[in-house]
Amino acid sequence: MIRSRKVGLMNRLVQLGILAYVVGWVFVWEKGYQEVDSIVSSVTIKVKGVTMTNTSTLGPRVWDVADYVIPPQEENTVFIMTNMIMTLNQTQGSCPELPDKTTVCKAEEDCHAGYVGTHSNGVQTGNCVKYNGSIKTCEIYAWCPVEDDTNIPRPAFLKDAENFTILVKNNIWYPKFDFAKRNILPSINSTYLKRCIYDPQTDPFCPIFRIQKIMEAAGQNFQEMAMEGGVMGLQIKWNCDLDKAASLCVPKYSFRRLDNKDSRYTVSPGYNFRFAKYYRDTSGLEARTLIKAYGIRFDVMVFGKAGKFDIIPTMINIGSGLALLGVATVLCDIIVLYFMKRRHFYREKKYKYVEDYELLLCTGGEQSLND
Amino acid sequence: MIRSRKVGLMNRLVQLGILAYVVGWVFVWEKGYQEVDSIVSSVTIKVKGVTMTNTSTLGPRVWDVADYVIPPQEENTVFIMTNMIMTLNQTQGSCPELPDKTTVCKAEEDCHAGYVGTHSNGVQTGNCVKYNGSIKTCEIYAWCPVEDDTNIPRPAFLKDAENFTILVKNNIWYPKFDFAKRNILPSINSTYLKRCIYDPQTDPFCPIFRIQKIMEAAGQNFQEMAMEGGVMGLQIKWNCDLDKAASLCVPKYSFRRLDNKDSRYTVSPGYNFRFAKYYRDTSGLEARTLIKAYGIRFDVMVFGKAGKFDIIPTMINIGSGLALLGVATVLCDIIVLYFMKRRHFYREKKYKYVEDYELLLCTGGEQSLND
Amino acid sequence: MIRSRKVGLMNRLVQLGILAYVVGWVFVWEKGYQEVDSIVSSVTIKVKGVTMTNTSTLGPRVWDVADYVIPPQEENTVFIMTNMIMTLNQTQGSCPELPDKTTVCKAEEDCHAGYVGTHSNGVQTGNCVKYNGSIKTCEIYAWCPVEDDTNIPRPAFLKDAENFTILVKNNIWYPKFDFAKRNILPSINSTYLKRCIYDPQTDPFCPIFRIQKIMEAAGQNFQEMAMEGGVMGLQIKWNCDLDKAASLCVPKYSFRRLDNKDSRYTVSPGYNFRFAKYYRDTSGLEARTLIKAYGIRFDVMVFGKAGKFDIIPTMINIGSGLALLGVATVLCDIIVLYFMKRRHFYREKKYKYVEDYELLLCTGGEQSLND
Repeated sequence: MIRSRKVGLMNRLVQLGILAYVVGWVFVWEKGYQEVDSIVSSVTIKVKGVTMTNTSTLGPRVWDVADYVIPPQEENTVFIMTNMIMTLNQTQGSCPELPDKTTVCKAEEDCHAGYVGTHSNGVQTGNCVKYNGSIKTCEIYAWCPVEDDTNIPRPAFLKDAENFTILVKNNIWYPKFDFAKRNILPSINSTYLKRCIYDPQTDPFCPIFRIQKIMEAAGQNFQEMAMEGGVMGLQIKWNCDLDKAASLCVPKYSFRRLDNKDSRYTVSPGYNFRFAKYYRDTSGLEARTLIKAYGIRFDVMVFGKAGKFDIIPTMINIGSGLALLGVATVLCDIIVLYFMKRRHFYREKKYKYVEDYELLLCTGGEQSLND
Repeated sequence: MIRSRKVGLMNRLVQLGILAYVVGWVFVWEKGYQEVDSIVSSVTIKVKGVTMTNTSTLGPRVWDVADYVIPPQEENTVFIMTNMIMTLNQTQGSCPELPDKTTVCKAEEDCHAGYVGTHSNGVQTGNCVKYNGSIKTCEIYAWCPVEDDTNIPRPAFLKDAENFTILVKNNIWYPKFDFAKRNILPSINSTYLKRCIYDPQTDPFCPIFRIQKIMEAAGQNFQEMAMEGGVMGLQIKWNCDLDKAASLCVPKYSFRRLDNKDSRYTVSPGYNFRFAKYYRDTSGLEARTLIKAYGIRFDVMVFGKAGKFDIIPTMINIGSGLALLGVATVLCDIIVLYFMKRRHFYREKKYKYVEDYELLLCTGGEQSLND
Repeated sequence: MIRSRKVGLMNRLVQLGILAYVVGWVFVWEKGYQEVDSIVSSVTIKVKGVTMTNTSTLGPRVWDVADYVIPPQEENTVFIMTNMIMTLNQTQGSCPELPDKTTVCKAEEDCHAGYVGTHSNGVQTGNCVKYNGSIKTCEIYAWCPVEDDTNIPRPAFLKDAENFTILVKNNIWYPKFDFAKRNILPSINSTYLKRCIYDPQTDPFCPIFRIQKIMEAAGQNFQEMAMEGGVMGLQIKWNCDLDKAASLCVPKYSFRRLDNKDSRYTVSPGYNFRFAKYYRDTSGLEARTLIKAYGIRFDVMVFGKAGKFDIIPTMINIGSGLALLGVATVLCDIIVLYFMKRRHFYREKKYKYVEDYELLLCTGGEQSLND
């Protein structure tokens, strides 16, 4: 009888384990009784900050939001120019191409009228002209003079951009539960909002971010990133348990660099693009200022799941949990019949009342134990 | 025997209830037999409308799409400028800052050369100059004259924008089922499309929206919103049952305001941003027209789920439903053994054939009843 | 005994079938033991290419990235202008409207001062003026002269755009598993990246796409699409099994046309929008060049799911699989008791030991067989 109790205890323990898993893990930890919904989000972004530069080409110059945010508004993202190569007064015409392996020439035979390469700035005219004192390159028809982007300004042109601030307004919505919320929490008043700066410890719900702090939190160096540009992820996580109070559903901010810092594995490292400002000079001729803008793009990425009690997942989990309880019996049986010392005695007992072999087969291994 | 029938009936009733839940709720109502997929969507937006203004600064002026949609195209969103503060002929130079708590000064000591505050328009030069007859403020190096945005034009500058129309073309795709559809349904012809305006009752599938109607549907006042701007959600819901005909999978439009109307809880209420148009004057000097654009941003938010019969969720739901049927037996047992008057008789019967206590324990409470 | 074996065999076969389904289909094929997560993605796009046009209005002119990508940067999309209708030197003033059904007039009575139609270019002044030799139309106050977009240039203005290349950098992230990856795989070096072009067979992981190849893969004709514009989907699928090596999680590219080619079912087929470049002429008057830009918008659509072993779905699937095994017994029973010739013998046997009708009822049809 002592051994008998052992088996019984074991069976109960296995059942208890399964019960603990179903209740503890599935229901308490993973909230298996909840229906989930994914997020629908809308983001608006506003940058603030002014900085000044003083170069020989441009003279003293102030840069404000209208100058360095390009385009002026986007949906979930904002681009802040931190460095630039400006090519003033470009007009349509002919000029020598930048020298490189394929464009350096000695005579007209080296150039092919109409040829355009992948990295060309214009269409070759077929002439070979002087680029500077020692080098001749193929002439191209292009916006002239051609942009020379071999040397990026060091340090970054708008190196003070690290003090700029970004205000992110985020509105989320869980359609299945018709639950909407904003990242500017109702508990925050406008006086606080006017002077706060996000800080994970002291101001975790302030929606205003200082660029330098974002960089730091992502483990990046602003001055380094400002030169060649880059893409930063400003992640907002909204994991909400809607069985609890709505006020407990709050955003969680985190920051991550999204582009590949390691330039070995990438073409055109960093982030840059070209745009132009078009002018008409007095004679009516079109001219432009070409700007190769390096800068940091902040992608606001909103994600998360909301859960709320629902009968379907609850029932599915209870049902499959009950089915698992049956495993305990099978396990116990196997042990009793095959691994215990007194197994012959049990087997005898077990099959004593089996009178119809057919029905035994029919009910299967699991149920047969109940006979 | 009467009581016995009662117990049997009860057991059958509980089983019936569970069966009804599995069949009715899980399968019919929640479509538990379907695999679901989330949407992949692409949106293009086109605005139409012309309006005219007549102010003392600008004279009579017509505004068309190229003037009031900024930037000219975006992915899932469109911004329509409804109000603006224009600062003409800004050039780089020195001028007095706008007066506020931190910028009003009495002497040069109050100003600090190089200082830039969060709300500054430029970099302080360290001088204290006259702003107007009575007030002196710190001089700044900035785009001068500085923009004065204390008074927003009332009523909104482009108050007739409520008659503009927005054409939304939406293409959705459910990758798992390779099912694609457009919001311009095949049943709609181009004659209808040229003159229709969306109306929830009469034209629920017309993809052309009059702004004023969107506002109304969202319970907003256009004229009020036009002054300070705002963000509107144009929601397209595609809930498709792909076990039925594809023609039953149609878009459902709804509208919602996404920004916080209540200005107590927010900084910079409404929606606005600054951009500039750059010019060269005859002497080659760069000048710009700075525009603080207030307006309504329409975010097109596409969401939904498609479901299609799949063996996996069907089997999971059947399996866990069957497991739940077992609960009926347990429940019935508990009642019979513990709550019924004749329970002693039943217990006796029940345990009569139990010869091996060990095996009884092993099979557990549920199965033991079958002995 | 022969029949008995038949029944037993059948029961085992049904059980085997269910087991095969659970193991084979649910676990091996559909990976039912995995927790899934949806993707968070960030995309940057860079276009390269130069082309030249020569028209009577504009003369020889080179077009580079700053000219044909509008706006210069967007989040998940890029627009490449392929065709255009340019209206030079528009100024605010009065001029005749384009002739159409509603604007052709004979006398002033046909025109209504202040009237603006849906397709108007400006606000009617009430006058009826000469449009050309034979036609008179209502005069409007608008940006004059009015754009005439009845004839789209054929072939497309920038027909050589098919040789442009698009570099797509995509960074994905599965938040639940904190797994991040880029579409520029670590196995790819920068030498390869500088010269490669995506090809499904030879270069499936090169992130640089030639436009003409994208078109071909989507079954579209570039020259046809270039005239009226269109929207192309560049789909990146990231289906990752995170139980395997991270290097096996690779992007899969595919291409699809997103707008409706069939112009019968749509208004304004293709894809176009209007934007303007603003100038100041010498007298300080504002003028603009209005451009109706037709072109191809490439929407980069990133989707996919990552799966990783997790105890919850595993247990749910095992549990419901076990419950399904019970079905085998029920099925077998039904056959034995109702459809077999010797059923009376079995029934007798089966109910021999049933002493308490109540308990029999209580345990239900399924369990009663085990008595």
